Amino acid sequence: MSPDPTIADLGEQRLLALLQSFCPAQVVGDDAALLLPTPGHQLVVTTDLLVDGVHFSDRTTPPHAAGWRAVAANLSDLAAMGASGLGITVGLALPPSCPVAWVEQLYQGMVDCLAPYGLAIVGGDVCRSAQRAIAITALGQVQLGQAWRRSTAQVGDAIVATGSHGGARAGLALLLDEAAHYPGLAQLSPAHRAALIRKHQYPQPRLDYPRHCATLQTRITAMDSSDGLADALVQLCRDSGVGARLQTDAIPLPEGLSLTQGTMEVESHPGLIWPLDWALYGGEDFELILCLAPGPAQKLCDDATLTPPARIIGHITPQRGQNSVELIFPR
Amino acid sequence: MSPDPTIADLGEQRLLALLQSFCPAQVVGDDAALLLPTPGHQLVVTTDLLVDGVHFSDRTTPPHAAGWRAVAANLSDLAAMGASGLGITVGLALPPSCPVAWVEQLYQGMVDCLAPYGLAIVGGDVCRSAQRAIAITALGQVQLGQAWRRSTAQVGDAIVATGSHGGARAGLALLLDEAAHYPGLAQLSPAHRAALIRKHQYPQPRLDYPRHCATLQTRITAMDSSDGLADALVQLCRDSGVGARLQTDAIPLPEGLSLTQGTMEVESHPGLIWPLDWALYGGEDFELILCLAPGPAQKLCDDATLTPPARIIGHITPQRGQNSVELIFPR
Repeated sequence: MSPDPTIADLGEQRLLALLQSFCPAQVVGDDAALLLPTPGHQLVVTTDLLVDGVHFSDRTTPPHAAGWRAVAANLSDLAAMGASGLGITVGLALPPSCPVAWVEQLYQGMVDCLAPYGLAIVGGDVCRSAQRAIAITALGQVQLGQAWRRSTAQVGDAIVATGSHGGARAGLALLLDEAAHYPGLAQLSPAHRAALIRKHQYPQPRLDYPRHCATLQTRITAMDSSDGLADALVQLCRDSGVGARLQTDAIPLPEGLSLTQGTMEVESHPGLIWPLDWALYGGEDFELILCLAPGPAQKLCDDATLTPPARIIGHITPQRGQNSVELIFPR
Repeated sequence: MSPDPTIADLGEQRLLALLQSFCPAQVVGDDAALLLPTPGHQLVVTTDLLVDGVHFSDRTTPPHAAGWRAVAANLSDLAAMGASGLGITVGLALPPSCPVAWVEQLYQGMVDCLAPYGLAIVGGDVCRSAQRAIAITALGQVQLGQAWRRSTAQVGDAIVATGSHGGARAGLALLLDEAAHYPGLAQLSPAHRAALIRKHQYPQPRLDYPRHCATLQTRITAMDSSDGLADALVQLCRDSGVGARLQTDAIPLPEGLSLTQGTMEVESHPGLIWPLDWALYGGEDFELILCLAPGPAQKLCDDATLTPPARIIGHITPQRGQNSVELIFPR
């Protein structure tokens, strides 16, 4: 075997054995995996298909990070439903030329992202393909009738962000050597640069929130910010038939970025300056956007056990016209 | 828009709306789908990734059949666990040049395969890709502790096939114009040819069996024959630590094929003649291979409500050496 063995060198049986070494022993070897949901709970299912060159690339995403991010995106969808996790299945399409080390690191990244939540890969499939692709289905559960939806926000609700926004986009810019276009990025300390790159490569799904919020015993409307903070709010408003007023200076930014750095005017949004555009539209931060009554919202923000702390970034207003989200800028 | 619109013509929003039109209204629009398992049941999960050119091709599989087969393969895995279905999720990777009609027919095929079991597509994802790929995860449930495994066969068990084998491979041969190599195929009537092609394009998953077998109240060891009847038996024997004696003339063949047609000796298996090689090694027939005590096995075979009837094709023997499955030929 060559010093950098490929999938073709390994052969199907040994590839399967390698992948199974990342799964709990009891789920290996039958036609399907078995899981035991808790009585009185609904099953929550979400699925994602990630393709090489579209969702990950060797240029910005080492295989360990690609595996982590793929799992994080799915766990984030479970969190957005107020669910806890049960496990994931992984379908893997690989060209024969794919290095074995790439697959090992991919699976290690998945397992490392799952481990803090006591979750595992419970099933899978692997096949030959011209292009690398990863299909993940995450399974979770939520107490019957307690799932968080997008359609239940009410006028007067506080809008809460569970963490900073814009960091994943900033990390990508650094990885793509775009820093020259953004003086604020170019001037960052090495530690801040590393932290932003980590936000792109190793986002933290907020699967800690459903458990935290259960104690509040209040109606929660939720969505994750995987497609951007602004997109999440627009969808929440549309599905709930309400509007939103967003206090731009209340949006938490990652360390190293601040609104006062802003110098560039964004053409498509006159008056919207960098890095606020990344915070609103960058996406892939995988935080949660929650709408809940102001009292419980404040309680959540005062919870010192949440890292980073939750922040109220605006309020739900009566339905407006075409622009459901109104941006309020500091004077 | 051109007369044959593509995914690129349609745009992402309208593509999503199109796909959602194949899903029940209540599952559309949140981060994840919600399902309610029956209390006292375990969740059964199986996943498959299918890639254009490897698992389906425009030459042998129209999109409607590709969708049907993809779903049938997953439902067959649920059936092999003794489970009933809850629903499926679908991840779809499509090149921008993919015709919209292809996607519509693919989804119609999936929905048509699910419908007889009261099942639906409950979630999904769609993304851009150079190569078409379909990721399916099927969810089912089985009464706690009642799942069928591969490792529980006992010496003396009867081996039951739920239907004929070799038909899917014969249908593929007809589609690939291989009939000239197999005189028996070339002589078939148009009706028999059509039926064999149907077995390749529209296999019937045996999700009817778990319910039928529940009334037998007996230990059942099971696997589906998606990778071939012989492969299923070898795996059952290995996992159960037993051997098997297979009565070759008892294996049901599809209408139009019979052992007496056999004329060609298969090089790799001296003495093994066509079409028996297809019945043993062809695969993709998606029947179940069950091992159970002879009494209940006979009862199953006498059940006139099962179409086609179940057939005892052999017996479980003590563990043998390397060749766990012994083929018995009629004299």
